[in-house]
Amino acid sequence: MRVTRPTLLIDEQKCRDNIKFMAEKARKNNLIFRPHFKTHQSEIIAGWFKDEGVELITVSSVAMAKFFIDKGWKDITIAFPFNILEIDDINSFSSEVTLNLLIESTEVINFLKENLIRPINYYIKIDTGYNRTGLSITQVNEIKNIAKFSEDTELLNFKGLLAHFGNTYNASTEEEIRQIYNSSIIEIDKIKSDINKEFDNVLISIGDTPTCSIIEDFNWIDEIRPGNFVFYDTMQYYLGSCSFDQISVAVACPIVAIHKDRNEIVIYGGAVHLSKDFITVNSIKSYGLISELNNMKWHKYFENTFVKSVSQEHGIISIDKKFINKFRIGDLIGVIPIHSCLTANLLKESIIV
Amino acid sequence: MRVTRPTLLIDEQKCRDNIKFMAEKARKNNLIFRPHFKTHQSEIIAGWFKDEGVELITVSSVAMAKFFIDKGWKDITIAFPFNILEIDDINSFSSEVTLNLLIESTEVINFLKENLIRPINYYIKIDTGYNRTGLSITQVNEIKNIAKFSEDTELLNFKGLLAHFGNTYNASTEEEIRQIYNSSIIEIDKIKSDINKEFDNVLISIGDTPTCSIIEDFNWIDEIRPGNFVFYDTMQYYLGSCSFDQISVAVACPIVAIHKDRNEIVIYGGAVHLSKDFITVNSIKSYGLISELNNMKWHKYFENTFVKSVSQEHGIISIDKKFINKFRIGDLIGVIPIHSCLTANLLKESIIV
Repeated sequence: MRVTRPTLLIDEQKCRDNIKFMAEKARKNNLIFRPHFKTHQSEIIAGWFKDEGVELITVSSVAMAKFFIDKGWKDITIAFPFNILEIDDINSFSSEVTLNLLIESTEVINFLKENLIRPINYYIKIDTGYNRTGLSITQVNEIKNIAKFSEDTELLNFKGLLAHFGNTYNASTEEEIRQIYNSSIIEIDKIKSDINKEFDNVLISIGDTPTCSIIEDFNWIDEIRPGNFVFYDTMQYYLGSCSFDQISVAVACPIVAIHKDRNEIVIYGGAVHLSKDFITVNSIKSYGLISELNNMKWHKYFENTFVKSVSQEHGIISIDKKFINKFRIGDLIGVIPIHSCLTANLLKESIIV
Repeated sequence: MRVTRPTLLIDEQKCRDNIKFMAEKARKNNLIFRPHFKTHQSEIIAGWFKDEGVELITVSSVAMAKFFIDKGWKDITIAFPFNILEIDDINSFSSEVTLNLLIESTEVINFLKENLIRPINYYIKIDTGYNRTGLSITQVNEIKNIAKFSEDTELLNFKGLLAHFGNTYNASTEEEIRQIYNSSIIEIDKIKSDINKEFDNVLISIGDTPTCSIIEDFNWIDEIRPGNFVFYDTMQYYLGSCSFDQISVAVACPIVAIHKDRNEIVIYGGAVHLSKDFITVNSIKSYGLISELNNMKWHKYFENTFVKSVSQEHGIISIDKKFINKFRIGDLIGVIPIHSCLTANLLKESIIV
């Protein structure tokens, strides 16, 4: 395939290595490995997980669950507070599929009790400090109330506690990620202890890629649900979750203009391809690192060179002047995305390299 | 249609009023009105422009040109520095279509001279201070060189100078937008004067929505190409380009959790629906204003209430506590997007209200 416009390049070997690495870490720690498929949303990449023995998956929406059910996946956690407006979709899914939903209020579990026509499992969403959503250690009574609904009906089966330590994304060192992990786990374990008096086999499921990448020995945990690690990205690289070599996606972007007077290159590749996610490095916003492409592969990134701004279709690269003469209008350049989940969601065109 | 997940609501009357307003402003000033279709990318909304007499349009990519050519549009400016890798697409377009390309280097115009098999018009992209891309007033010789290519071949027809005053988006007052407009126009007119000695009928085309919304009397200008104004959005409202009532799109988002302890509402509606564009108001990031929806219409926004953060599918609304009891889990809430072009590009589902 001839690449003429912004296109996601997926390095199959790197993806497979990332999947193998995480699957082995889960096996070594005796953990259920339930990878999040929101990052790739791809039938082909799902197959690479299957090759590694994966059968249990996580998605972030009912629509995404439907997509993977249609591809034959049969045990799915929808890791998003259940949206009661989508009850008809849930009820329409094949009874052969094991569905795990996320609950964090008695309103929603009560709604399910009254409206479900097929059995589901549910996890209670726990907030350990990210403060996005979920119930905290101060709300153990509410947690118990929600768990108790499983005693009323065969359709509701309480499985355990689920958390996402999203605050690891704000960490500035690996040590800080370890601290967030440790303090979060202690909180969840405390909640589990309180609940264990009334409920057996309460599973603990956690999710974020920084934690799952950096922590070696998992205690008190039953399941991990990382997603981003299949691709990794510039943000994860700066967090210390991965090496640059582990990043398995780049966006091939055509060069359309070169401004030598200000050491800038204009690419066809903007917010509708890369997303507007950025990181701040030394007080400067970066919308992506830049690599040379050789046969659609990338090996290192240019120092002092990054996407400095994006508009709808344009990206502006600030390039170290010692590299600018390497490039011509019409060349393809590789942008290593800041946040691969959003970039992969945006790009309709991709090739496996 | 029952709305169960994030859905773009398009208020037809407001859109038509916005189109009429801009079309009349163009007529009054004797300007060619060539609206940018990148904002909506919609065949239906294109029809509303046609109802207002529009036949000339602007797009931001070759793919978008193809989309609208297939719908019968016959005079299209691709307002993006021409990407030479897409020459085959350009050559494949029907000869009945008038194509206007954007050029800013002799490399690209020379490439076209050697590779075109159908005639095109071209504009030279001028940079008047936005510093995204284009040639500036200090590069008049390069501008003349590019214009001269039209003397060599019937396939290349030089039309004029095209600019986008994108720096108006960084203005903090209407007065500042007027200043940017005035100084930019003076620069372009100076370039035109230099060129006029050798070329007749050099047209001047400008584009941004803040300028086209705020300026009443256009001098020295031949054509306007605003796009965003068909929808407007929260960013334009804060810039002063529009009233709140003129904003013609909102995103209907289901409420999935309510955290009264911290005056927050969790919605199904995140970065893959709204985009990660934000504005900063009083040092606080906002990813969107919030309106009540009545029969899928919105009339005002809640004070001290906004989307404070987004992740892939979640949005977190910080809400003034005096409003929080109005809402229940399962309600739809209206998010007025920060940047409607990016939001409309992301949302596959929309309804006209």
